[in-house]
Amino acid sequence: MEDVMEMAYALDTFYLLLSGALVMWMAAGFTMLEAGMVRAKNTTEILTKNVGLYSIAVIMYMLIGWNIMYESDGGILGFLPTIQFLLPATEPVTAEMARAGEADFSYFSDFFFQVVFVATAMSIVSGAVAERMKLWSFFIFAVVLTGFIYPIQGMWSWGGGFLDELGYADFAGSGIVHMAGAAAALAGVIVLGARKGKYGPGGQVRAIPGANMPLAALGTLILWLGWFGFNGGSELSVSSADAANAVATVFMNTNLAAAGGVVAALILARALFGKADLTMALNGAIAGLVSITAGPDTPSPLLAATIGGVGGVLVVFSIVALDKLRIDDPVGAISAHGTAGIWGILAVLLSNEDATVTGQLAGIAAIFGFVFLSSLLVWTILRFTMGIRASEEDEQRGLDVGECGMEAYPDFTTGRSK
Amino acid sequence: MEDVMEMAYALDTFYLLLSGALVMWMAAGFTMLEAGMVRAKNTTEILTKNVGLYSIAVIMYMLIGWNIMYESDGGILGFLPTIQFLLPATEPVTAEMARAGEADFSYFSDFFFQVVFVATAMSIVSGAVAERMKLWSFFIFAVVLTGFIYPIQGMWSWGGGFLDELGYADFAGSGIVHMAGAAAALAGVIVLGARKGKYGPGGQVRAIPGANMPLAALGTLILWLGWFGFNGGSELSVSSADAANAVATVFMNTNLAAAGGVVAALILARALFGKADLTMALNGAIAGLVSITAGPDTPSPLLAATIGGVGGVLVVFSIVALDKLRIDDPVGAISAHGTAGIWGILAVLLSNEDATVTGQLAGIAAIFGFVFLSSLLVWTILRFTMGIRASEEDEQRGLDVGECGMEAYPDFTTGRSK
Amino acid sequence: MEDVMEMAYALDTFYLLLSGALVMWMAAGFTMLEAGMVRAKNTTEILTKNVGLYSIAVIMYMLIGWNIMYESDGGILGFLPTIQFLLPATEPVTAEMARAGEADFSYFSDFFFQVVFVATAMSIVSGAVAERMKLWSFFIFAVVLTGFIYPIQGMWSWGGGFLDELGYADFAGSGIVHMAGAAAALAGVIVLGARKGKYGPGGQVRAIPGANMPLAALGTLILWLGWFGFNGGSELSVSSADAANAVATVFMNTNLAAAGGVVAALILARALFGKADLTMALNGAIAGLVSITAGPDTPSPLLAATIGGVGGVLVVFSIVALDKLRIDDPVGAISAHGTAGIWGILAVLLSNEDATVTGQLAGIAAIFGFVFLSSLLVWTILRFTMGIRASEEDEQRGLDVGECGMEAYPDFTTGRSK
Repeated sequence: MEDVMEMAYALDTFYLLLSGALVMWMAAGFTMLEAGMVRAKNTTEILTKNVGLYSIAVIMYMLIGWNIMYESDGGILGFLPTIQFLLPATEPVTAEMARAGEADFSYFSDFFFQVVFVATAMSIVSGAVAERMKLWSFFIFAVVLTGFIYPIQGMWSWGGGFLDELGYADFAGSGIVHMAGAAAALAGVIVLGARKGKYGPGGQVRAIPGANMPLAALGTLILWLGWFGFNGGSELSVSSADAANAVATVFMNTNLAAAGGVVAALILARALFGKADLTMALNGAIAGLVSITAGPDTPSPLLAATIGGVGGVLVVFSIVALDKLRIDDPVGAISAHGTAGIWGILAVLLSNEDATVTGQLAGIAAIFGFVFLSSLLVWTILRFTMGIRASEEDEQRGLDVGECGMEAYPDFTTGRSK
Repeated sequence: MEDVMEMAYALDTFYLLLSGALVMWMAAGFTMLEAGMVRAKNTTEILTKNVGLYSIAVIMYMLIGWNIMYESDGGILGFLPTIQFLLPATEPVTAEMARAGEADFSYFSDFFFQVVFVATAMSIVSGAVAERMKLWSFFIFAVVLTGFIYPIQGMWSWGGGFLDELGYADFAGSGIVHMAGAAAALAGVIVLGARKGKYGPGGQVRAIPGANMPLAALGTLILWLGWFGFNGGSELSVSSADAANAVATVFMNTNLAAAGGVVAALILARALFGKADLTMALNGAIAGLVSITAGPDTPSPLLAATIGGVGGVLVVFSIVALDKLRIDDPVGAISAHGTAGIWGILAVLLSNEDATVTGQLAGIAAIFGFVFLSSLLVWTILRFTMGIRASEEDEQRGLDVGECGMEAYPDFTTGRSK
Repeated sequence: MEDVMEMAYALDTFYLLLSGALVMWMAAGFTMLEAGMVRAKNTTEILTKNVGLYSIAVIMYMLIGWNIMYESDGGILGFLPTIQFLLPATEPVTAEMARAGEADFSYFSDFFFQVVFVATAMSIVSGAVAERMKLWSFFIFAVVLTGFIYPIQGMWSWGGGFLDELGYADFAGSGIVHMAGAAAALAGVIVLGARKGKYGPGGQVRAIPGANMPLAALGTLILWLGWFGFNGGSELSVSSADAANAVATVFMNTNLAAAGGVVAALILARALFGKADLTMALNGAIAGLVSITAGPDTPSPLLAATIGGVGGVLVVFSIVALDKLRIDDPVGAISAHGTAGIWGILAVLLSNEDATVTGQLAGIAAIFGFVFLSSLLVWTILRFTMGIRASEEDEQRGLDVGECGMEAYPDFTTGRSK
């Protein structure tokens, strides 16, 4: 019996680590997706931003974010975190504790799994503010978001805070990760303004095509793969029959929702624009994935595909609508993660009897409100101190030369992109 | 004992899910490989095709294909499927059943693993018909292949039908997946015809180089990785010593066969063409992988490398021969999956004593015959209804503009590719 | 009890196979990294080199390398290997042996895991000698390194030889794999000489920018992911609580070290060059990973990040210093794997009480000395027989045309790169 307990501990630890590795891989997904969707002249910069933000997220979460989120014991009054620094120096769970069933998996494996989530949230921001933001101001924002803003709201639900008390149901983070990232991105875009030339005087919207569609497709498929770790790992266990069944449902539904999102977005885009729009199909996949993330364990297969399909429809309309509002999001991140994230939180109500309308709405309001407002504050402070907008000259010739001193494609680019 | 049974169930479910995720990743492999091998002007279209076909496969298999293949109970007379729709709404295997040993893994995990196989079969088609097929006709074909053609012949062997009765041995699908995909592709290419300018009047073959070799290499390496899930997962269990040993043999041999294919193709291409031909090396890898897929569990390491090496030789000659026959396959998919697939089915006889010449030949004939003829019928119907060939103008300026309204590399392409 | 033993065997076998698959994926990482860092005109060649070398490594290690390294029983006098050929034809560990605890995992799974390590070592070489070496001479070198040089020194420590006796501690191979690869690369670069135009008459260093930065970033992120298998798998077990805890520590620390390397290199490069240098950030990540590889299981999280950060600092200075010495390494491989590898071996002393200064220095001296000198000999012999340097004409117009007869980006490249 003890042997079996120990092996269950080992298997679940392994499962968390593997899931975490898959979520880490999503960093490559965001990096490729964003690199594909910007112009050639801003590509090195967005690569640097993505590799840098992931690293900053990992360091900041180790220094403070993890403790805020998971060691605040629900927080003071359910929403104020307690402050502690650093992780334990060695694994706190001993083999004896594991055998006695006092812990289900290694403490460090839990940290590893959670740290890649905070990086995901931050990755969402980088796409939306692409092609015109100063690199180092972005990094400062990353420090604040990953060290403080994300962990505080994360503590409210996953850390035992007031949203958890209210019954807010968000299995793997449609709201806590994706909508949160989108809220921070939206605040950034508002403070930052649109790219030069994106919107014309008479309400015109100028398409600014991305430089490298294969990378965008690759990035989306990487995200799709990584999402099996994101959603599957959030079950936190695979070692019992019930847990394994739940994980199987999650994998299957995650895949079906993404597929539903692609098919719906492809058909809708053809109806609206007369073409098979690749970028809409890709955003449909992501929207489908985000939509199912709050509750991948309870829908039937058909419902999962439908929830994803609705996400795919919403993302198309949302992208069009944001452009009407002159909110310039080069990669569609706010729509794919924010709009679809809200839908995902509500869609939990379709199949999870434990979820309540009140709880879900409270989650949306609290997370979106807090992340948006606190991000707005940080972006505004940055704007009036370091500045956040690249110079007109840098924006014109490309951030790669201005910020990084290095072109992304020196052998290919013709006069056309410059 | 019950605890151990339950954990074996959990571990095998986890193993199937992880293997399925690796096979899903092969979708990215095909996408990158094909995007690298076509010209810049047809890249967005092939990306759209790949992301779309994967999604269609997943939806269609959930709606009907899975039931045809695995719930027909061997079929009427061993080859006619029974028709049922949809999966169960919730996981059919309860924890009690798992503990009692009534099921080895979750039902949904099995669906998840199998659904990525049908997508693989369909992916093979997209490369062969690249650069001149109408996108939406292709999607209609995908609906038929993934919902009906693939599952029907799959039922014949893996679903307990007549090929299973005849002793046809095809461990992970050299025939059922790869040759089947190649047969559908061959039918498509015949109905569709060659690309403009590919073949000159006097038997000339004009090389049409792919636009992005790093993507082609990346795609091949993705396939290589995913194949560990494809072949390894097909053991369907890893929780006993025997199963784990079998899986280890499969992983090792899969890797050796791919390596053998590369080395053989590289050396042969140098002998024939005087150069280290990268595309032949990549097709050698794929051919090696396809060759070992029908029986990766029985050969010795040296035999596995040799089987792969023969596959690498065959693919080079097959590509040259198909061009002589004016069968225009831009990525070499028919050779790498079809020719090598047939070889793989036969190579099982070298090390698996349970396989028979009759059984293997019956498998080749039945699968190839059925998939080729039914596909030919569907392609022909499509040709005379929606049409399958892009307009000359679209082919000339590229399908990206015509079908998708979006260039893949707007900042790079010079007059040269257009 | 026997059941539990058997399942532990199964789980650990599965774990090794999965870890091996992740390390195999590193081949794609090196391929993309190097393809991104060379000029467009040398891209097909470096792709061919990478796919080829991986395949050669797999074949050679099966033919002889594995036996040298792990079946020499420590070797004659601790350093001379015994020679045997080929692997067993079938898995040597029976289910009975597994149940009786006579083996911890499948023999073939161990081979699969180890074979991807030798490929990694060889991958390090290809980047350093890029853009000017003859392809087939490179392949001959790969035969010798993977069949003989690497396995001989590997036997010294992991195969029970004299370095193991001396207490040399190198958990996953900062020295045995990475520094060894860098030593072979350094010898190659010295014999080969710098690329035309790299160094000017007055000590000038001309930057030769890589053609495709997204590929370089992708490659680095692939390596980052694969490294979880590289370091994590080197624990060789995950089935007990202690093993699972160790693996969790390894995953967490590996991630932290890479992140530390990125942040340190980014900040240092900004201080030195005034820009956010992407290639330095990427090399910072790799240096961080290499630095932690010799001892990822013992440091605290903060120390792991610091060890990686120091690696990130060292790699920047090392790249600058090698250029001063006119050692032309187009991708920075010698610095990222060699300099950081040495640091990693020494950094073990900071947290592993079992490591000794003598043991670590002996490891550095023996491995570096042997690999460097034997490689120097092989390179020199190749130079005076087949020749290793591409013709001036080939170097000028690009190795892709000369060696492979195929451009990597035929639709994009302008006059600029040629």
